[in-house]
Amino acid sequence: MKLESLRDLFEESIQDLYSAETQIIDAMPKIVARVTDSRLKQALESHVLETQAQKERLEEICEKLDIDPDGKFCRATEGLVKEANELLSEDAAPAVLDAGIIASVQKIEHYEIAGYGTARVFAMHLGETEVQKLLEESLQEEKQADVKLTVIAEGTVNEKAEGAS
Amino acid sequence: MKLESLRDLFEESIQDLYSAETQIIDAMPKIVARVTDSRLKQALESHVLETQAQKERLEEICEKLDIDPDGKFCRATEGLVKEANELLSEDAAPAVLDAGIIASVQKIEHYEIAGYGTARVFAMHLGETEVQKLLEESLQEEKQADVKLTVIAEGTVNEKAEGAS
Repeated sequence: MKLESLRDLFEESIQDLYSAETQIIDAMPKIVARVTDSRLKQALESHVLETQAQKERLEEICEKLDIDPDGKFCRATEGLVKEANELLSEDAAPAVLDAGIIASVQKIEHYEIAGYGTARVFAMHLGETEVQKLLEESLQEEKQADVKLTVIAEGTVNEKAEGAS
Repeated sequence: MKLESLRDLFEESIQDLYSAETQIIDAMPKIVARVTDSRLKQALESHVLETQAQKERLEEICEKLDIDPDGKFCRATEGLVKEANELLSEDAAPAVLDAGIIASVQKIEHYEIAGYGTARVFAMHLGETEVQKLLEESLQEEKQADVKLTVIAEGTVNEKAEGAS
């Protein structure tokens, strides 16, 4: 049986997050390249570095718990990235595209918030305290990145988009 | 130009949510049918009714603002549903499957939390106060549904999953 225990489900959730982070790291440069607002560009560039660190945390977890990191392909992130790419392919005013990019990236972040939130609780149940702390770090980073994007959207980007037409 | 203004982006975000809700309504019965825990089954059944009401709210918005609700197919929800179906196809202990279903549904809810959160802010910028209120209602329902699932996971399901093997 593939999912016989909570540990099996936990391992799958780590593999899912690893696939998600890998796909996000691949997708972000193309997204960031299309951003016009300098504060947004900077925020996304620093989030890409955080994403890299989150991926490394997952590698650390996989090594510690003897999990194959490449055991799963995350279909949900595939869909989220497809949606972001669809947006980039549309004919859009730069300020409106910035607002759309924030929306797309926040959706990706929310996927990770849900994923890390669940994996952290599973780690707690399994008594994996160190792993739980690593997952908690990534969870907090994702939540902060989400808030930061809302602040940027509300501070400048949405107003610029409103005045675009 | 397809996305010339914030209003264009707002309309697209409503169409995206409409496609998301439609796909979720189609996917949920198959998911609910596989649930073992009675409290979880009840919570998901009542959330399906909420989802139906959320779809109707979007129809109301589309009618009010003359938006074609079927203008977009939500690739992200397609991916989220694919992932949930992948879980259902795995050979799993019933209690572990319950814990996995909670994780999958929370990911779907987080997509909607991000989506309704953004659409509500766009509506506010556009001075669409009534529409903003409708979106706020759905947003709050999604947040409450997410909390409810965490409570069920932590109350019984995760412990049952832990004892499954």
